Amino acid sequence: MINLMRTLWPINRSLSGEGNRQTLTILSEFIGENLEISRIPSGSEVFDWTIPKEWNVNEAYVIRPDGIKILNFHQNNLHLVGYSDSVDKIVSLNELQDHLFSLPNQPDAVPYVTSYYRNGWGFCISEKDRLGLPEGDYRVVIRTTKKDGFLELAEFLIPGECKDREIIFSTYICHPSLANNELSGPVLCAALIRELKSLYSKSKPHYSVRFLFLPETIGAIAYINKNLELLRHRTIAGFVVTCVGDDRSWSFVPSRLGNTLADRVARRSLAHLGIRYKEYPWLERGSDERQFCSPGVDLPFCSIMRSKYGTYPEYHTSMDRIDTVVTESGLNESFSFYLKLIEECQNLVIPELQTICEPQMSKRNLYPTTSIKDGWIDTRNNMNVLSFCDGKTELEEIAKLSHLDAKVVQNILHRLQSYGLVDF
Amino acid sequence: MINLMRTLWPINRSLSGEGNRQTLTILSEFIGENLEISRIPSGSEVFDWTIPKEWNVNEAYVIRPDGIKILNFHQNNLHLVGYSDSVDKIVSLNELQDHLFSLPNQPDAVPYVTSYYRNGWGFCISEKDRLGLPEGDYRVVIRTTKKDGFLELAEFLIPGECKDREIIFSTYICHPSLANNELSGPVLCAALIRELKSLYSKSKPHYSVRFLFLPETIGAIAYINKNLELLRHRTIAGFVVTCVGDDRSWSFVPSRLGNTLADRVARRSLAHLGIRYKEYPWLERGSDERQFCSPGVDLPFCSIMRSKYGTYPEYHTSMDRIDTVVTESGLNESFSFYLKLIEECQNLVIPELQTICEPQMSKRNLYPTTSIKDGWIDTRNNMNVLSFCDGKTELEEIAKLSHLDAKVVQNILHRLQSYGLVDF
Amino acid sequence: MINLMRTLWPINRSLSGEGNRQTLTILSEFIGENLEISRIPSGSEVFDWTIPKEWNVNEAYVIRPDGIKILNFHQNNLHLVGYSDSVDKIVSLNELQDHLFSLPNQPDAVPYVTSYYRNGWGFCISEKDRLGLPEGDYRVVIRTTKKDGFLELAEFLIPGECKDREIIFSTYICHPSLANNELSGPVLCAALIRELKSLYSKSKPHYSVRFLFLPETIGAIAYINKNLELLRHRTIAGFVVTCVGDDRSWSFVPSRLGNTLADRVARRSLAHLGIRYKEYPWLERGSDERQFCSPGVDLPFCSIMRSKYGTYPEYHTSMDRIDTVVTESGLNESFSFYLKLIEECQNLVIPELQTICEPQMSKRNLYPTTSIKDGWIDTRNNMNVLSFCDGKTELEEIAKLSHLDAKVVQNILHRLQSYGLVDF
Repeated sequence: MINLMRTLWPINRSLSGEGNRQTLTILSEFIGENLEISRIPSGSEVFDWTIPKEWNVNEAYVIRPDGIKILNFHQNNLHLVGYSDSVDKIVSLNELQDHLFSLPNQPDAVPYVTSYYRNGWGFCISEKDRLGLPEGDYRVVIRTTKKDGFLELAEFLIPGECKDREIIFSTYICHPSLANNELSGPVLCAALIRELKSLYSKSKPHYSVRFLFLPETIGAIAYINKNLELLRHRTIAGFVVTCVGDDRSWSFVPSRLGNTLADRVARRSLAHLGIRYKEYPWLERGSDERQFCSPGVDLPFCSIMRSKYGTYPEYHTSMDRIDTVVTESGLNESFSFYLKLIEECQNLVIPELQTICEPQMSKRNLYPTTSIKDGWIDTRNNMNVLSFCDGKTELEEIAKLSHLDAKVVQNILHRLQSYGLVDF
Repeated sequence: MINLMRTLWPINRSLSGEGNRQTLTILSEFIGENLEISRIPSGSEVFDWTIPKEWNVNEAYVIRPDGIKILNFHQNNLHLVGYSDSVDKIVSLNELQDHLFSLPNQPDAVPYVTSYYRNGWGFCISEKDRLGLPEGDYRVVIRTTKKDGFLELAEFLIPGECKDREIIFSTYICHPSLANNELSGPVLCAALIRELKSLYSKSKPHYSVRFLFLPETIGAIAYINKNLELLRHRTIAGFVVTCVGDDRSWSFVPSRLGNTLADRVARRSLAHLGIRYKEYPWLERGSDERQFCSPGVDLPFCSIMRSKYGTYPEYHTSMDRIDTVVTESGLNESFSFYLKLIEECQNLVIPELQTICEPQMSKRNLYPTTSIKDGWIDTRNNMNVLSFCDGKTELEEIAKLSHLDAKVVQNILHRLQSYGLVDF
Repeated sequence: MINLMRTLWPINRSLSGEGNRQTLTILSEFIGENLEISRIPSGSEVFDWTIPKEWNVNEAYVIRPDGIKILNFHQNNLHLVGYSDSVDKIVSLNELQDHLFSLPNQPDAVPYVTSYYRNGWGFCISEKDRLGLPEGDYRVVIRTTKKDGFLELAEFLIPGECKDREIIFSTYICHPSLANNELSGPVLCAALIRELKSLYSKSKPHYSVRFLFLPETIGAIAYINKNLELLRHRTIAGFVVTCVGDDRSWSFVPSRLGNTLADRVARRSLAHLGIRYKEYPWLERGSDERQFCSPGVDLPFCSIMRSKYGTYPEYHTSMDRIDTVVTESGLNESFSFYLKLIEECQNLVIPELQTICEPQMSKRNLYPTTSIKDGWIDTRNNMNVLSFCDGKTELEEIAKLSHLDAKVVQNILHRLQSYGLVDF
């Protein structure tokens, strides 16, 4: 994963453009199979939004009065404000200052700034460099294009036995050279796909697993716009994958409703691995759960992160880098957790008794045929589990109600299923 | 208000009759516009009840053996038991005693007694006077009429922009010379109407406000009988206005269900004004919430009083007077509270997001177009509020969920509404 | 009851057969009226089950190598494993051992063993006797028949005024010479029927009371199979009557849902008699509530026992005897409790107001016609109770809500009912 991240690092990603396409190509190569890509033309309306024009950058830099070239986009794509328009002119330091963004409290950091939906231009600079700018005339050169093009929505499906039941992982591909937020999500998802492809090369998983690589916000909105009914019909649980590359902490943002199947399985997976995490309130959400959980959509989506966006000092600055923020161990731990989460999702069962009254266990050799005093205590667990198979209660909840370990209940249910006594 | 009360004071009010009509006329004059009056003929059936005959009093008094005229209705209408039949005869003190009502524990007070639904006659007298009655023959004179007539139901509507959504205030006009219970309710309602007419002379309020002046119980039942479907359809919140004239305490009787919108807005209004009040249980209700909240009706009605009926010593006696019980400050404080309550009701909003997913805030300049690190934190409140606009949650509840002051949420919602993003 | 139990004691009961018919005949004689019997033919399918062939025993015993006859069915029907096939052969001690059942931890007790749904044969023996068996050849003689016949379901109805509302008591008649589990249930039910017949000889109870005498499990399943819609429609509360003959403790197993009307009335009856009892979780159920409460059936059934099956040492052994386990005082106490429970069930009322708004109490002399200050406080309880008669709330809950004793509420409701104001 860390190597994939290094490969993706220099590419300029945004809502749209060549960098995004390049990123999706590299991800496809890593996965060993093409991502499925939908292209939404610029100008398309998706709910309240309009797909913006496609933005591409040829070059961008500033020449100081002393001839030194600074803020070179090709050295660090964070220097150029996202969706800046073309410009080539001489400006005074004063005029230039109006177009510069820096962070006084973090003098060494270049901030990450975008201006997707307004014309203009700007550069991002460290506060330290900004203070060192001499008076005089500066030449500003930005060669970008904004033209009708496409917004790319990429997805990858691991088909399951239950075609109409999906677990969804959604991550975003619109951030340029920023490591934890957000190269960690796409990299982790790509690694998960590669792992699942191998894991399920011979036999399908129970539920389908769908991975979404979208530009944040506009991409999620466009995807929901195109797929709302299917999402409603198919989604068992969904997870927004972001900020999963550092190794400093674990964070959880629940769904708007707070107790969906996604929330429960996420909390259980964290608990089963003994992970201590901070649970944030819905009010402090900030990624695509904003769309997936919005009123009228209300899909079961939550988000499990390492250090949450907005809470760590390097967030949205040039300091959010590989090695210093994102670590190999951080990515690996996240990978292990997400594999566990997928396993837990695959284990989700909501069994339903296929007869009325207790089934006759003995005719299936599921019950001691000779009833001796303590004999039937052995099959009590079977019968207890059966007594909760009302088609409304999930295995984990049945386990709680039956005072049994979930693994035990799972074994029981699979056995009962093989006899046609329950279905799930 | 205190002057209006003094004008209304001497009039003999009951379930029906000239006194009630006179009262409604004086109230109309005070308001400066006619109350709308429905007349239900005697003998009409309203649910389990029959509208009684109309009762009018010409005179009523007793002549003592020594020729002294006592218990003169024209001096104090409380002396005559309500709905007494005509009589003119000589009776012994003994026989007279069977028709006298007094309060041994309050020897100076004349009690308030009615006998609406049974024939007979009676006088109310202070215990002190009763003990001083000499032996001998008394002449009893009561000249009343009970004949087919009408029960008057009066109402006044302040029309709102939302025609089909009403806030209702119901008070009763069937008590003779009793101040707090019950001239305070009609007087306060009349003053509120005058104030609201002026307040909304140029622009309508959001919700309609309807005032009901009814004879207690039978009037409320008749009104519900005639208007049940409309009441169900239109009522946002209703309040029974009674015992609002003294300045000794505040009291609250919740609805039968206990947590209707009326209950919530009443509690909030009391809290916002820092009013300390006693909350009584539903079991200690006693006015027309008995009808508005009865099973099968279940309208959102509660009652906010000063000293609750039945709890203060002067209640239902000649001691319930202007100046000693009802005070100008008491009425004025109640007036202020009810204005505040109406304001809170008018502020009730149940917003619903008008799009799917988050709307695009930036195209409406509702969002920083340049996304810098901390930029979007400024609009977080907007987005949090929006995330709860599911058409099922009222503003105040949204405020709680968003950890924001209601005023802040209100401002946000009005702004969002002006952009067509939410409707309420 | 203890004499009836002694009469029934020696009879060999099982799922079916002559012993069951004999038992039902004796019960009918005791009751003084025939139980109503449904016969389900062998081979009939009832949900997941098939009605087994009818089993009858002529004789069964073993001849030791020294000629001594042991394990004689006619001396103790527990010696023969239930539903054993016929056999007449000489076997070695070794081979015999494979067909013997004993309890090493209870060396004096003969266990109770059945093998309803598998062919084969076996004997039950005390561990002490088993250890004393000499080497050598044993003659095993079992003469039984398994042929097409019937499963008998017996019931008895005490018709109530409300034909379509029933209280159900279900007990089982498939255990041979075992006292507490299970002759106590059928004996208690028969005694209850006799008592209720006398109690209601002149006037019907409010609700019908139905008693079911079924073979456990298969009988309950067959009964539900034949009567599911009626059960759903009619059952107010049901109780599984088992282990009601000892005087050592009280036990309660709730329904699967845990808070049905049956659970509430059972808990209240126990509380009203000051009975201390152990409440077991649903997980430790074990009788026909397994069927009555199964998913998709979900009838309001619970079970009130003395020492619960499986928890006392004599359970399902030859030690579960009259006098040592079942006592006259135990049966009598259970009888008293169940009579109380029936009384509580008969007292169940779910009243519904028959008008809209408060009814006019005064025209029915239910209200002081002369309203004096404190007068109406006397009828406040009436009005409070009325205010909760929404057709969804039972008397006991209304009592709680009204802060009144249930007896008081009952009196009020009966009075209101006599005036047609409420119905229940």
